[in-house]
Amino acid sequence: MSVFTKVSPHQVSLWLENYAVGELVEMSGIAAGIENTNYFVTTSQGEFVLTLFERLTAAELGFYLNLMAHLAHHGIPCPAPVADRQSALLGALAGKPATLVTRLSGAPISRPTAQNCEAVGAMLAQMHLAGRSYAGTQENPRGANWWRETAPKVTAFLDPSRAALLASELEFQFGQRAESLPRGPIHADLFRDNVLFESAGEAPRLRGVLDFYFAGVDTLLFDVAVTINDWCIDDRGEIDASRAQALLGAYGRRREFSPSEHEAWPAMLRAAALRFWLSRLDDFYCPRPGELTHAHDPEHFRRILELRRTKVCPLR
Amino acid sequence: MSVFTKVSPHQVSLWLENYAVGELVEMSGIAAGIENTNYFVTTSQGEFVLTLFERLTAAELGFYLNLMAHLAHHGIPCPAPVADRQSALLGALAGKPATLVTRLSGAPISRPTAQNCEAVGAMLAQMHLAGRSYAGTQENPRGANWWRETAPKVTAFLDPSRAALLASELEFQFGQRAESLPRGPIHADLFRDNVLFESAGEAPRLRGVLDFYFAGVDTLLFDVAVTINDWCIDDRGEIDASRAQALLGAYGRRREFSPSEHEAWPAMLRAAALRFWLSRLDDFYCPRPGELTHAHDPEHFRRILELRRTKVCPLR
Repeated sequence: MSVFTKVSPHQVSLWLENYAVGELVEMSGIAAGIENTNYFVTTSQGEFVLTLFERLTAAELGFYLNLMAHLAHHGIPCPAPVADRQSALLGALAGKPATLVTRLSGAPISRPTAQNCEAVGAMLAQMHLAGRSYAGTQENPRGANWWRETAPKVTAFLDPSRAALLASELEFQFGQRAESLPRGPIHADLFRDNVLFESAGEAPRLRGVLDFYFAGVDTLLFDVAVTINDWCIDDRGEIDASRAQALLGAYGRRREFSPSEHEAWPAMLRAAALRFWLSRLDDFYCPRPGELTHAHDPEHFRRILELRRTKVCPLR
Repeated sequence: MSVFTKVSPHQVSLWLENYAVGELVEMSGIAAGIENTNYFVTTSQGEFVLTLFERLTAAELGFYLNLMAHLAHHGIPCPAPVADRQSALLGALAGKPATLVTRLSGAPISRPTAQNCEAVGAMLAQMHLAGRSYAGTQENPRGANWWRETAPKVTAFLDPSRAALLASELEFQFGQRAESLPRGPIHADLFRDNVLFESAGEAPRLRGVLDFYFAGVDTLLFDVAVTINDWCIDDRGEIDASRAQALLGAYGRRREFSPSEHEAWPAMLRAAALRFWLSRLDDFYCPRPGELTHAHDPEHFRRILELRRTKVCPLR
């Protein structure tokens, strides 16, 4: 159960008086979520999610909440932060930064089909296109600077072969040039559990994209690589060609990949694997004090990184 | 069938390329609607309504679309205009100003209960409170200036008793002072067919408020009076006390009525009846060229006006 901060219905009722969303009907804690405390909140006017932020500060949250508002305003089915009576997207509750967002329907799927991957690719391209007009500039918080800080911390815990792999990959990645690649706000964490689907007749419908709290401005291709490395792999971590083609094809029809992106693709799939290997190593060996979550196995992304170093998947 | 301007799926598909809402899956014309052409549009990402404006100009539409965006952003369940890739809320299609808005669930109800009226009162107060931070300033397009223009046009068609009633009521209304009444953006047309309800268990849930194309800045109390005159009347046009109390009570708990509003209430109920008697007379006797709609019977609001002149309903 990931409700770190308990708030009572009475506290929430009072807090909602600063909004135009009606009165509290019922609320319940949400078990999922690693970084924040979330409650489903039903009011007389609709269904919302209340998020209390445990890690991020009000200053950092501006980029995320305004990005979600921007994307929702452009028709992307992401949670839309609701403005309060002073038109602020961020408030405070129980001493934590807090926000109310619209609740989306649908549920995550654990075993995606090529059809699901096609929908995800289409959505990702639409999100990148809609993001172009967003003014926020915060860089990817898990980008190269963060790799540089984190690698020395975790290397001490690694056996020689893994330490060598990490050092070799970092050296390779720092030799890459990304200046010519299209950039913009990216989700940067578009894993299966952050996308909601509903079945409407025979066709699955993508109904929601969640959890923008690792978003930042970076190369759009990095976002595609993160997504492929989760949505289009088999049990061993190998890329499944038919799902990858479905995702990349749907993306490419909406935003054509540039020649420099085709060239950068193999290195980018490695960078996307490296980023999650590093963060999982960090969560595993250097948990923050009081952290309650179960760290994911870092080996999953070590294996994916090894596979991407030896085998190339085309960007189409 | 109120589809005045026909557009093909091919036209809509091309038009949607300027949005981040996915590809057209299907579309169908909407029969309801007097002033605009509306289509339900299903895309790979969601459900929308495409509106082509037959009467309003791009210049006038800015106030309405930005108001709807403002209210939706504050959690009011009204259609949210979707921004295109240039972040514009208004485009053009088939030579008409056109917009894409989110589609709401639920359906209008023709015989409201006190519970429905309570929900409408709560929503109206929330809308007025959320509207306070809206910057648009367009005045109510069917306010006193419009009465002044319209009355002479229709008086020629009226029998002496009705002409006398109209003259008498206008004289009375022009003698009223509204300076001390709270003002803000009002819906100004919150009739039963502009509110969507869904049944969730035993309680009806208000799911949508539609059709802001008569909105404007005016006294908030006028909006309350328009709403009471439609939601809380019996078959003869008399105010039903239990429904009126449910609506006014729910409203007043969220935004307390001021002493000047209590004083102005009887005249405001008459003003709200006059406004719709006048517009129905105008639609009936002076239809615009090419107008295809069935004009409503003006007598309905003539009777309501007569009733409000003789019998006072308390503002609570």
